[in-house]
Amino acid sequence: MAAPTEFLTYIDSKADAFIQRLADAVAIQSVSGDAKRRGEVVRMAHWLDGQLKALGVETKLVDLGKHVMDGVELDLPPAILGSIGNDPKKKTVLIYGHFDVQPANKSDGWDTEPFELVIKENGQLVGRGSSDDKGPILGWLNVLEYHRDNQKPLPVNIKFCFEGMEESGSEGLDELVEKESKAGGYFEGVDCVCISDNYWLNDRTPVLTYGLRGLTYFKVTVSGPGRDLHSGVFGRTVHEPMTDLIHLMGRLVDQQGNILVPGVDEMVPPADDEEKAIYEALDYSISDVESAAGGQISLTSNKVDLLMGRMRNPSLSLHGIEGAFSEPGAKTVIPAKVSGKFSIRLVPPQTPEAVNPLVIEYLKSEFAKLNTKNKLEIEGLHGGKPWVADHKHWNFEAAKRATRSVYKQEPDLTREGGSIPVTLTFAESLGVNVLLLPMGRGDDGAHSTNEKLDRSNFIEGSKLLGSYLYELAAISK
Amino acid sequence: MAAPTEFLTYIDSKADAFIQRLADAVAIQSVSGDAKRRGEVVRMAHWLDGQLKALGVETKLVDLGKHVMDGVELDLPPAILGSIGNDPKKKTVLIYGHFDVQPANKSDGWDTEPFELVIKENGQLVGRGSSDDKGPILGWLNVLEYHRDNQKPLPVNIKFCFEGMEESGSEGLDELVEKESKAGGYFEGVDCVCISDNYWLNDRTPVLTYGLRGLTYFKVTVSGPGRDLHSGVFGRTVHEPMTDLIHLMGRLVDQQGNILVPGVDEMVPPADDEEKAIYEALDYSISDVESAAGGQISLTSNKVDLLMGRMRNPSLSLHGIEGAFSEPGAKTVIPAKVSGKFSIRLVPPQTPEAVNPLVIEYLKSEFAKLNTKNKLEIEGLHGGKPWVADHKHWNFEAAKRATRSVYKQEPDLTREGGSIPVTLTFAESLGVNVLLLPMGRGDDGAHSTNEKLDRSNFIEGSKLLGSYLYELAAISK
Ligand SMILES: [Zn+2]
Ligand SMILES: [Zn+2]
Ligand SMILES: [Zn+2]
Ligand SMILES: [Zn+2]
Repeated sequence: MAAPTEFLTYIDSKADAFIQRLADAVAIQSVSGDAKRRGEVVRMAHWLDGQLKALGVETKLVDLGKHVMDGVELDLPPAILGSIGNDPKKKTVLIYGHFDVQPANKSDGWDTEPFELVIKENGQLVGRGSSDDKGPILGWLNVLEYHRDNQKPLPVNIKFCFEGMEESGSEGLDELVEKESKAGGYFEGVDCVCISDNYWLNDRTPVLTYGLRGLTYFKVTVSGPGRDLHSGVFGRTVHEPMTDLIHLMGRLVDQQGNILVPGVDEMVPPADDEEKAIYEALDYSISDVESAAGGQISLTSNKVDLLMGRMRNPSLSLHGIEGAFSEPGAKTVIPAKVSGKFSIRLVPPQTPEAVNPLVIEYLKSEFAKLNTKNKLEIEGLHGGKPWVADHKHWNFEAAKRATRSVYKQEPDLTREGGSIPVTLTFAESLGVNVLLLPMGRGDDGAHSTNEKLDRSNFIEGSKLLGSYLYELAAISK
Repeated sequence: MAAPTEFLTYIDSKADAFIQRLADAVAIQSVSGDAKRRGEVVRMAHWLDGQLKALGVETKLVDLGKHVMDGVELDLPPAILGSIGNDPKKKTVLIYGHFDVQPANKSDGWDTEPFELVIKENGQLVGRGSSDDKGPILGWLNVLEYHRDNQKPLPVNIKFCFEGMEESGSEGLDELVEKESKAGGYFEGVDCVCISDNYWLNDRTPVLTYGLRGLTYFKVTVSGPGRDLHSGVFGRTVHEPMTDLIHLMGRLVDQQGNILVPGVDEMVPPADDEEKAIYEALDYSISDVESAAGGQISLTSNKVDLLMGRMRNPSLSLHGIEGAFSEPGAKTVIPAKVSGKFSIRLVPPQTPEAVNPLVIEYLKSEFAKLNTKNKLEIEGLHGGKPWVADHKHWNFEAAKRATRSVYKQEPDLTREGGSIPVTLTFAESLGVNVLLLPMGRGDDGAHSTNEKLDRSNFIEGSKLLGSYLYELAAISK
């Protein structure tokens, strides 16, 4: 059941007002990572709460307690829980979004003031949070507004969960979601989840996302001397920690991206033809990857292999070294204690629990081969499980139908190489299907300067979100 | 011919006054690397010039021009040239020292104010510059004072060359030394050089030093992406510069300290038995090396091999990486451009000119084997030749006799692993033998907090410098 035509024309007719509301939201500098702007995040929570209430949503602000940032104890901004519709004959969808944003200063290289939404002639709406994640949240408000103005009941019951700490580790959210997912909790009766907080692959083809990679991050420290030494005095007399660490880091990954820790790559079953066909079908080419990377440096000229490398295979990246000489110039130091940082992106069935022992055992045995008198210490800094959803589930099927009806296109089915940890929290706490339904394009620059959302993505995206609700209502479980 | 007994007793009798003069010198904060204290370096030059004149030395201050430091154009402090004695029947010795010091602030961890000389109960004279290099310069003043007070002629003619920029690259000095070493220059007629600006190996055995290692410093840059990438998006799709750089750096030196660049270690002829006997005789053990390094990390348990590793073999140290993630914490960045820093300490017959092409060719060929699409750039940041003198020369023989007579000990014959570039400049410009005759002990902490000179090293060291002049006068060329 497609959305009513009146809905689609309503969204078009109100476009300017919707963009003005987006400008109002962008103007609130809700940077969660900046202690001085914590009040702005709270102000943003109240602004959004007011909008939801005015649109008929019952809401409550949830106090998430306190945390310490930059050595200061701060109140966490409240989460917003909302509910509209309570018809037991209708499905109930849980919608997540975040109203905090990344830091932004004009001096970072923005062409315009980051917290003043600028409408460019090419249709780009430029401003911090336009695409991540205020635009998508406002897309839902646009849908609600049609139903309020026209006194139409929503086709499904909706629960909302909006947070203000996503860009700073979603502090306090996991506990809230776990608590409210239990019997008798706020999320009781939720049939599926929809999160609009990622991006299309390119600037032309809509996307549904059904997977995210996990992560396990290591800090490997080699130490020996009691203090930094001078190479003039100690060169070729002592075991230098840098020599050992560099040798160790050089045994983790090869030039083709293969992970050299035995058992890690092997844990992942190869893709079958059906899965490969998904990657073959994606509207994304090797030149798209290289243009996004800014260099002709792709690991392979085989499109399917390249996209599987990003989306469904694990990867190991060497990030850097703490404690070594890292400044410009020339210093002849033998650093006393150096810590290599690397991480592995995980895919099912890998988990940090399964992978970490293999990494630790391998590092220890390779270190033993070095025959050095220095000491090795291995720490896991943080980690998270990968997530993959069933993309043939009715929740995805509804989104596919909505995409076809709004965009007249088949959506690309993607997996993301990074992680959105709350996705896994919802999937595991509720035990229902989670759909990632992005609004913005791959070039929106969510965490960069000149973040933008295209006007057409905002307006057609609002139609998509509404249409998804109607398709959800119609589809059989 | 030993020094007159009156000289030795004179030095003892004046010890307190000599220490007070050292306190006066330490009180002048002549930090050459601090633009704000440039005036203090100049004040120190004038103080020293006044001392020399009062002791009968003809001096001149030499303007070395200007330089830029921290973006500010500054006048270089003047060098001091001095001359006392002009008897064609006597030998002429050139004495070098520097009156500038390393930076020091109490907050760096000093127990006392760094520019107030403190006389500790254990005899240590603690203060910045006490050992490096004001103490040794004042040792020469002590010797002059005996001859002035007793109206005794010096046994040799002396030329002095004192500079105020040694701790900041000796700006302007090379040109001065080269110019004054030419026929008709200030240093005409110099028969040998003596520099007192290094240290004993330990705290008990005097040392004569006849060699210094050279250096060649490399910056190896691997780049590919147009900007830093996120491993969630690009892990296992692109050639990561860190992967390539780590592999390259891992092929430079092995865990035993062997340099893997073909031809570099091989350039150095092995030590013969006579040379090995020098290392065997040194009053320095593996536990001394390990206690100085602060860890039981020596490369070998063979004393001769260990000391030759420091003194007469080349070494390669990996110092760090510029452009990678080097902060505390966990960041999942794929750095776009990373520069590995390493250097090779050189020994004769190695020179940067001979070694650099081998390093560059090797890096290029190993990089080619990586089969990466990233780019390699190799830069030589700076370098200097090694230096070795004939330790059987009469200049060294005079110093050996002086050591025996003052310390009742045979001096250790050492080579230093680091470099004192002016040594090479004197050796090459004048074509005469250069002797390094240290006053301080290995634990003086020249560039650290709580720099000290032991009272006995200052007093007996002054006797040693005077005795050396008498032995020089007596020895046959
Ligand atoms: Zn987001
Ligand atoms: Zn974000
Ligand atoms: Zn010095
Ligand atoms: Zn120094």
